[in-house]
Amino acid sequence: MKISQLETPALYLDLDAFERNQKKMAQRLNKFKIDMFPHYKSVKCTTIAHMQIAAGAKGISCAKTEEAWDLAHAGIENILIANQVTSLENISRVASLAGCCNLTVCIDDEKNIDDLSAAASFYGTVIHCLVECNVGADRCGVNSKEEVLALANKIAESPGLEFQGIQAYAGQISHELDFTIREKVSIEKENYLKSIISFLNENQILVKRVTGVSTGSVQFRNADTVYTDVQVGSYAFMDASYGKLGLEYEHSLFVLSSVMTVNEKFVIMDTGRKSVGVDQAMPQIPGCNCEEINVSEEHTKLPADVLNAKVGDKIPIIPGHCCTTMNLHDYIYFVRDDKIIDRVEITSRGRSR
Amino acid sequence: MKISQLETPALYLDLDAFERNQKKMAQRLNKFKIDMFPHYKSVKCTTIAHMQIAAGAKGISCAKTEEAWDLAHAGIENILIANQVTSLENISRVASLAGCCNLTVCIDDEKNIDDLSAAASFYGTVIHCLVECNVGADRCGVNSKEEVLALANKIAESPGLEFQGIQAYAGQISHELDFTIREKVSIEKENYLKSIISFLNENQILVKRVTGVSTGSVQFRNADTVYTDVQVGSYAFMDASYGKLGLEYEHSLFVLSSVMTVNEKFVIMDTGRKSVGVDQAMPQIPGCNCEEINVSEEHTKLPADVLNAKVGDKIPIIPGHCCTTMNLHDYIYFVRDDKIIDRVEITSRGRSR
Repeated sequence: MKISQLETPALYLDLDAFERNQKKMAQRLNKFKIDMFPHYKSVKCTTIAHMQIAAGAKGISCAKTEEAWDLAHAGIENILIANQVTSLENISRVASLAGCCNLTVCIDDEKNIDDLSAAASFYGTVIHCLVECNVGADRCGVNSKEEVLALANKIAESPGLEFQGIQAYAGQISHELDFTIREKVSIEKENYLKSIISFLNENQILVKRVTGVSTGSVQFRNADTVYTDVQVGSYAFMDASYGKLGLEYEHSLFVLSSVMTVNEKFVIMDTGRKSVGVDQAMPQIPGCNCEEINVSEEHTKLPADVLNAKVGDKIPIIPGHCCTTMNLHDYIYFVRDDKIIDRVEITSRGRSR
Repeated sequence: MKISQLETPALYLDLDAFERNQKKMAQRLNKFKIDMFPHYKSVKCTTIAHMQIAAGAKGISCAKTEEAWDLAHAGIENILIANQVTSLENISRVASLAGCCNLTVCIDDEKNIDDLSAAASFYGTVIHCLVECNVGADRCGVNSKEEVLALANKIAESPGLEFQGIQAYAGQISHELDFTIREKVSIEKENYLKSIISFLNENQILVKRVTGVSTGSVQFRNADTVYTDVQVGSYAFMDASYGKLGLEYEHSLFVLSSVMTVNEKFVIMDTGRKSVGVDQAMPQIPGCNCEEINVSEEHTKLPADVLNAKVGDKIPIIPGHCCTTMNLHDYIYFVRDDKIIDRVEITSRGRSR
């Protein structure tokens, strides 16, 4: 079966491009002995997570307890929930999961440590903990070295918990278009991290792990980095948003769409915001540099002069944002050349708890 | 079980507010003898569609063939696909479905008529057809009365098809904040429609049905309207986007969220763009007029001074856009006062073909 025979909208992965992206990222990280924990919020599919492990990833990062549950039950052994786990129901779940895999969570709150410790003690498990440092995303995380030390000490003293190190994710620069600014801020934040690590060392706290770093900032890590592992996600698929940064990775994820109306001014396709993520950028058509793509709930509109098409034509779309696109589909087609190889379940679509 | 005991993010419907919205819309339309075909793209749930039929709706509008399939197989008898059906697979499906219910589709292309006619003849069914007129959304639809006449004549002559009338949906003014502009454009477009209908009558084409009209423009329809039915959708739930228009309907749809980080500057909650639709507006917190809400992939951030909260608190969020929010969840909780009444499947989430 060929790509053009899929019913639309249809999400598909170009396996050749995906594998080249995997290889490029692995080569970059191997060179500097940095571990890879690709972020599951981008792929949401345990089959793809296993392909990433096979390509050299040491473990998988994720954002939600439900995602960690899916990963553990699919046999992934090293899982980082790169986020706070604060509800009692989820704390109980991660304490249980910590018995099934090597599980790490992030912490920025003192009471949270008590709750995690109580749950881990109840299950007789050990939860690995990172203190989250705010490095400019201004979201979760603490804002001073003294706070990091206080939380690290408290974790170290809490039964069922083990202090591992620091999470520092500078999400604010991931999509910064200006290379110089992206590089400058990225290095500044790493220097800030170095000062925190020195302070912890001076206070007899050993930092075994420092994690963070996105597809947009991985190029600034080298052999001297303090980061032990990176949480890159979008490199695997790329999307129109990251496409603007001119990175070395290829677009491998597409939403096949059908042309449904053609007139003098516009071409209208059958893919809307319920099938393609547009929250970070508008989608693009491969080989067609178009600034005027418009996506409404069920339609994609582009000017007639950028695409020579007739009703019924099937056109691939590069998603504006790969992560939210994966979350809209129940399954993804794997393709090689023009051929459908497999239809795979997006196991963790909608798993947001 | 109480609302605050739900695990988060959790989508819920306040049944009292929803029922008051249903009643208000039914009263408005009954007064002018306008039929109600509420749009399924907003609710995506056959249970809620049946509640709308019970509250007086004559049928249900939808956008996609998969949605029509779900509605027909849930026993809904009058279904309007308020959209073009152009792929051969979907044409075949609607021709088959037309034997199971009273099914209507929209047309703006000559070849599409041949395909629909061939499929309906194959199944021995009758597909009701509307010609779509572009009334300013600049998406699908034809742009002159001569084109409408040509398509209407061709439909009338095609075996298995029955010409019913016109679809004219002025989506471009649905969210226009200025009442005067919304009213002016809405009336202008209706006058344009009247001229088309006269032209068709002069050419011996009887227009039995004129459909269109959204939650934002239904207030401009009265006893003199040419619209026989309206496709209102968001009135049922309302959202932050329509909230800005000051309409008479209440917010009935909420995403319950947990506070996960509190610091001097921000409150962070566990609901992101994978659980709440933000494509038409940012969400709002009930009773908290906040312009600075920020939603990333897994987090909602608001300034600390607008919400007095601690980690673990559960806070309802009014979605930015109700239609895309429904499409992100597998089920919805029905609540009355503070009590969970039921957990209902969002049957057509992800059904975008």
